[in-house]
Amino acid sequence: MKFTVSKEALLDGLQKVQHVVSTRTTLPILSNVLLVAEDGRLRLTTTDLDVGITGSVEANVIKEGATTLPAKRLVNIIRELPASEVEITVDAKNVASIQCGPSFFKIIGLGQDDFPPLPDFEGAKEYRIPQSLLRDGLKKTAYAISTDETRYVLNGIYTSFREGKLTLVATDGRRLAMVENDLEFPASQEVDVIVPTKAVQELQRLLGIEGEVLVRLSDNQISFTIGEHLLVSKLIEGNYPNYRQVIPGESSIRVELPREATLETVRRVSLLSSDKSNSVKLVFSPNQVEVTANSPDVGEARETMEVSYDAKDLQIAFNPEFLKAPLQNLEDETVYLDLIDEMSPGVVRIEGSFLYVIMPMRVTN
Amino acid sequence: MKFTVSKEALLDGLQKVQHVVSTRTTLPILSNVLLVAEDGRLRLTTTDLDVGITGSVEANVIKEGATTLPAKRLVNIIRELPASEVEITVDAKNVASIQCGPSFFKIIGLGQDDFPPLPDFEGAKEYRIPQSLLRDGLKKTAYAISTDETRYVLNGIYTSFREGKLTLVATDGRRLAMVENDLEFPASQEVDVIVPTKAVQELQRLLGIEGEVLVRLSDNQISFTIGEHLLVSKLIEGNYPNYRQVIPGESSIRVELPREATLETVRRVSLLSSDKSNSVKLVFSPNQVEVTANSPDVGEARETMEVSYDAKDLQIAFNPEFLKAPLQNLEDETVYLDLIDEMSPGVVRIEGSFLYVIMPMRVTN
Repeated sequence: MKFTVSKEALLDGLQKVQHVVSTRTTLPILSNVLLVAEDGRLRLTTTDLDVGITGSVEANVIKEGATTLPAKRLVNIIRELPASEVEITVDAKNVASIQCGPSFFKIIGLGQDDFPPLPDFEGAKEYRIPQSLLRDGLKKTAYAISTDETRYVLNGIYTSFREGKLTLVATDGRRLAMVENDLEFPASQEVDVIVPTKAVQELQRLLGIEGEVLVRLSDNQISFTIGEHLLVSKLIEGNYPNYRQVIPGESSIRVELPREATLETVRRVSLLSSDKSNSVKLVFSPNQVEVTANSPDVGEARETMEVSYDAKDLQIAFNPEFLKAPLQNLEDETVYLDLIDEMSPGVVRIEGSFLYVIMPMRVTN
Repeated sequence: MKFTVSKEALLDGLQKVQHVVSTRTTLPILSNVLLVAEDGRLRLTTTDLDVGITGSVEANVIKEGATTLPAKRLVNIIRELPASEVEITVDAKNVASIQCGPSFFKIIGLGQDDFPPLPDFEGAKEYRIPQSLLRDGLKKTAYAISTDETRYVLNGIYTSFREGKLTLVATDGRRLAMVENDLEFPASQEVDVIVPTKAVQELQRLLGIEGEVLVRLSDNQISFTIGEHLLVSKLIEGNYPNYRQVIPGESSIRVELPREATLETVRRVSLLSSDKSNSVKLVFSPNQVEVTANSPDVGEARETMEVSYDAKDLQIAFNPEFLKAPLQNLEDETVYLDLIDEMSPGVVRIEGSFLYVIMPMRVTN
């Protein structure tokens, strides 16, 4: 196996697939990237058995072949190379010689035969989603995924193809983010799946703003084809909680908030929220909201914002991190906070398909 | 106590003194910064009992007074403030009220009476050093300070005022960096002291490139006055090893090396040095040096540089980190490596007062 390739293209190709590789694995070949040189391209593949990515870069293939090389080490070497043209030769024992300008590296690989193949999606259901739509939907929901490994069904994004809509939901039980968009697909292909966090993260790296994603779904696997790249992942098995029942009904109180200014106010005030209660309080009165926090023995913070508010006086407390998260991930100038009373969940909405339910905390005075 | 101050000036002043403050201290007041408002200035002081810094910023003092406030928390609050003018009022119970635009913070301080005073330098020896000279000397030596706490006399920079020279030395027993410069001071003031690492780090933050530093030395304390700032530190007590005997005599072999290219070559090749031996080998032959490293079961790296070399063939191995450190901290285009044989220390020199002794490692083939 022998090929030449540009340093920049190879580095970019490796960086797109390298995050899947785990450094502490009991199966050494999972630390490696599979390299296949043929037809004028070098194909790069990584997998951790749950998630796999494959992509390819243009290469001048002098002799076709395949091998696997330690991924992190290869990236570190390629990144430091002194010139643009890289020549890689791999012998029958999977020893790769890398020549670039005055630099020569030899690294020992493992045979490609032991590299686990990516799953097959023959006969799978297919869906086409605009990249920008999926990218935007993941950005607006992924931060709400639970990191509590004991609640494994929540460690991913609930992805539902139902009634001509693609619905994405993430929750950790204390807040919930949801985005819903129209999408065309055959009625016979209605299905709900849970895409695990690691696949969501890789997907976010690969998604651009133009073109489509081809999604394929088999019984327990999902794949995303994005240009030259293919991402495959196991699905989380289990029943996602009935999130619809968490979304409160009509609320009588709507506050219009400037997104960035609200984010900054909450960030500042939360500097004085105590580690124990970890809450900020929003005190609404006619045309203003006072955001406050206090921490015994340390001090307190208070900031007043003018807002259009004409309902009854109301106090409600939230975890500042949960209040900041959607404000950081949205791009709209204005967001709406819908409230019922101090004990009921608040809902953040925008002009468009998004909602974020946030549980209140006990108000202390 | 009441004053107004610009956010930017206060933040800058706090950042200059905050690094001394330890967050895990058994004496709570050492987490605080002492604020003294008088004569149109706000003076800020921190100490950990070993090292202390004081500086001041312009302020509009409405009511003179003093207090101490938690340093890290104060910095975090001031950094996030929404406007430029900050008004701070402190009551008799050391509760500070901070008002800035729509933001209001209250933080609880501690009385200034318990704040340890910085040591007195009355009757101390005085030296004046150009800031640029001291800054340059510390940059060229500080990286070689030992971090091994069991060898406490090496945990600082040996600073010698002798024979009309200021000599700075740092070593960890495996490499040694030294800078020596002419300096005028009375012959009666000859002395050697060891300035601890923490003081060296703070000094590097405070030193600029213009003007002088006033150094004061008492029995076991040193102070540095740099513009508005005063840094004081305990000295390390103990006998610094006789570093002169580590410096090899005349060497017969001198190699001229391009600094940046050599640094890059060593960095690349060291990617394949093994964790165990952690060495790169330099193989000199007529007009070239080959830099190599190898790591069993992983691979090897090799890079050839053209250099002017006309002595006998020679192989010598060094720890790559120790070889890179001076190359990273020097600015000269060319450095010289003086060698005797493969078992003797190498010496890195430049045109100017600097030398760096580096112990070789056993060469394996």
